[in-house]
Amino acid sequence: MTTPVPRDYHGLVGSQAFPHRHLTGIAGLQPHEIHFLLDEAEQWVEMNRGKTKHDNRLAGLTLINAFFENSTRTLLSFEIAGKRLGADVVNMHAAQSSVKKGETLIDTAVTLNAMRADCIVIRHQSSGAVRLIADKVDCPVLNAGDGWHEHPTQALLDALTIRRRKGSIAGLTVAICGDIMHSRVARSNILALTALAAQVRVVGPPTLLPPAVERLGVTPFTDFDRGIADADVVMMLRLQNERMAGGFIPSPREFHAFWGLTPERLKNARPDALVMHPGPMNRGVEISSSVADDKARSAITEQVEMGVAVRMACLDVLTRKRRGVEGWA
Amino acid sequence: MTTPVPRDYHGLVGSQAFPHRHLTGIAGLQPHEIHFLLDEAEQWVEMNRGKTKHDNRLAGLTLINAFFENSTRTLLSFEIAGKRLGADVVNMHAAQSSVKKGETLIDTAVTLNAMRADCIVIRHQSSGAVRLIADKVDCPVLNAGDGWHEHPTQALLDALTIRRRKGSIAGLTVAICGDIMHSRVARSNILALTALAAQVRVVGPPTLLPPAVERLGVTPFTDFDRGIADADVVMMLRLQNERMAGGFIPSPREFHAFWGLTPERLKNARPDALVMHPGPMNRGVEISSSVADDKARSAITEQVEMGVAVRMACLDVLTRKRRGVEGWA
Amino acid sequence: MTTPVPRDYHGLVGSQAFPHRHLTGIAGLQPHEIHFLLDEAEQWVEMNRGKTKHDNRLAGLTLINAFFENSTRTLLSFEIAGKRLGADVVNMHAAQSSVKKGETLIDTAVTLNAMRADCIVIRHQSSGAVRLIADKVDCPVLNAGDGWHEHPTQALLDALTIRRRKGSIAGLTVAICGDIMHSRVARSNILALTALAAQVRVVGPPTLLPPAVERLGVTPFTDFDRGIADADVVMMLRLQNERMAGGFIPSPREFHAFWGLTPERLKNARPDALVMHPGPMNRGVEISSSVADDKARSAITEQVEMGVAVRMACLDVLTRKRRGVEGWA
Repeated sequence: MTTPVPRDYHGLVGSQAFPHRHLTGIAGLQPHEIHFLLDEAEQWVEMNRGKTKHDNRLAGLTLINAFFENSTRTLLSFEIAGKRLGADVVNMHAAQSSVKKGETLIDTAVTLNAMRADCIVIRHQSSGAVRLIADKVDCPVLNAGDGWHEHPTQALLDALTIRRRKGSIAGLTVAICGDIMHSRVARSNILALTALAAQVRVVGPPTLLPPAVERLGVTPFTDFDRGIADADVVMMLRLQNERMAGGFIPSPREFHAFWGLTPERLKNARPDALVMHPGPMNRGVEISSSVADDKARSAITEQVEMGVAVRMACLDVLTRKRRGVEGWA
Repeated sequence: MTTPVPRDYHGLVGSQAFPHRHLTGIAGLQPHEIHFLLDEAEQWVEMNRGKTKHDNRLAGLTLINAFFENSTRTLLSFEIAGKRLGADVVNMHAAQSSVKKGETLIDTAVTLNAMRADCIVIRHQSSGAVRLIADKVDCPVLNAGDGWHEHPTQALLDALTIRRRKGSIAGLTVAICGDIMHSRVARSNILALTALAAQVRVVGPPTLLPPAVERLGVTPFTDFDRGIADADVVMMLRLQNERMAGGFIPSPREFHAFWGLTPERLKNARPDALVMHPGPMNRGVEISSSVADDKARSAITEQVEMGVAVRMACLDVLTRKRRGVEGWA
Repeated sequence: MTTPVPRDYHGLVGSQAFPHRHLTGIAGLQPHEIHFLLDEAEQWVEMNRGKTKHDNRLAGLTLINAFFENSTRTLLSFEIAGKRLGADVVNMHAAQSSVKKGETLIDTAVTLNAMRADCIVIRHQSSGAVRLIADKVDCPVLNAGDGWHEHPTQALLDALTIRRRKGSIAGLTVAICGDIMHSRVARSNILALTALAAQVRVVGPPTLLPPAVERLGVTPFTDFDRGIADADVVMMLRLQNERMAGGFIPSPREFHAFWGLTPERLKNARPDALVMHPGPMNRGVEISSSVADDKARSAITEQVEMGVAVRMACLDVLTRKRRGVEGWA
């Protein structure tokens, strides 16, 4: 499991390189398909760093960002991605949604479809909602986070960040720390990183680890220091208080004392360990400011940047068939 | 009243074909003007079904969607319509409006006008608010629903849906069913369909029928089965609980038992009767799921599609003078 | 102080004409820099009055409007300005912001920066928040109002309105009236108008005048009639009840009796005095309707129009270096 996977070893082109209609999760993706999306994202990293951040390949297409659950940064990221590719982008906010008038989720989906959307990006508080919608519409659907289920573009942007910083993902030891149980980010990252041959650990208090998490091919740790020992990447998660119903809710201070990433604690990891966080951060809770702001170690800002590039890649790739791009028709 | 009106019998061109500056309601429109807008919409139905859903005729124009009352689907529809025509589209949401700071409606209108809007789409909870604004601004104003008054683009999209499915509107028997009293959709549809020579019935409990509704040229029924007997089109409305102040508010279950459209009840209508609903639907209240999802009978999804096309037509036609299109200057 | 400043007396070109990276306030701007922005705005006034209100000079640039404090008209104005210049414009609304999840302001700023924004427009309830963000990002930052501090584009649009109506600003007597204490509009206007050699008075009840306001180069008046006597411009402010914590809160009626601008009171000013108000107005409180609607005297609508033009000028000028415009690289 320590040999890096060559990025292009399949030599596939066109729709064979990414045969999926939707991106509802990392589950079901082959390692070379993940690498293909990351490879595609590289060009957008470059463009976004240049003077003109605009490409017109999605001109004439309608992208709908249907956010049933609020998320400033993910919505901004998708909106910017769509606009930079020239699409007509419209946002549907849950707060003003017909859902409040009693409309079912499927009726909303059918409505968006009838407006002839070319791609629908969905965020929803319920696991599986995105898959439900994907089955009902004619256009590609992109999951921007659904309940405890998946958040695939977050995992892709994390993988891209690691791949660029470390050269390769295979063989790295990645410790995902904190509230694993309620985190779709953790779930998608576990799927992506194990597929890309990293050795993944999940580290957290027993109450915040999902039962039988080993079955996902990861090693659980309930001791923070041991969990991050010699890790190449330490990925912190935020406390998802809003998703905890009943049961153990730690106080921020208590959580920080036992599960906050401090400079001292970070010494357990490899000296060149990368620190990641999907944001928004609760500084002083799951991560201390000095760690978050350590530019040599922290890749947190870079993650945000990779987010836009990865989303551009996904929007581009998923709409190729629709646009009649050669090899994708 | 059973002879179809030829769509082009007036042979009018340019601004003579549609001499109105605003679209504040169906009231005041001639039958050939309504058909003209529907004819114009046909091209957009075609374009929206194609690969590239974009035309640049509104490039350089600023469209403001001023929604004082929330409405996801109508706002989305207008936003998509404007963007597909190349306009610079901006949305003004009531929730974040200066109205909350005590500004009058007219001051808000004057402000939008001073920003040199080229077209203002307005939705407002008060009947007549749109007309009030139209009188104060230099650009065309489009009513996206005002109080109990009118919702003209809904009536136009319904007419387009019927015309496409049935070939013609004149002579058809259309039963509009449910909460007629509180429905601007009913009102605009009554005006449009009677103008286009359909025989229109309004069907509902006495408490939800407006007084003296016969004066609008429709036949009232307080018996559901008789009201839809031999109808060519059965148009269901949603319960507008939010617009009922005091008085009779039926429970959903009770309403469904007496006024919900079920497959059994639908047998009273013609075998090829079209089922319509402006959405969002309360499934199991005014319409049962098996009727809503009966693809042969239900045109509900098509209504949504026609909505975008009709709005594109209205935005295009109303701004022609402004754009100096030949014959409209 | 009565000689008009020639608008072009410095003969500066390129980035020498406006050497600032950000526009966080009027403080620090030279008179010729202010005139330079006003001169630049003139072309946009013209364009916006024409048939095609669109220029593509910001094509390929991403403009983020980050509004932590709601403001319909200012947001609309910036959004329209950005779109008319061809930028990819995205709005970040506070109500749906990560700030609610506990993210710090700086983390939000760093996030927007990482998405490779080319310009960030910020409105925030805290004085100094914009400067804080400006220090953390790579792109130009434009203050759209921060706490009691500054609202520079409001002062620029007011100056442009006066300059167009009166031909020049130098030597004019301008009376800024009402709640000076809580008004960033007053503060920015005092800075701009004194820099442009107007004689500025601040007029209001003692409790609504800032202490030692004379140090800003203005003359305070606590008598309304004397304060506007022979004024060339009477600028009314709205009561900022939302910014008053404890202390004196006048009733609207009481305020109007003593501090509302009525036709009778306005007779104290010069016969050709210009009446201004930044909006939204509380009619019958700080200004009576007959004054607000007096088209010969009131420039209130024109202020809104100038707002879009001034913002276009600021967005254009601040991004020139970034766009590699000759003389600004």
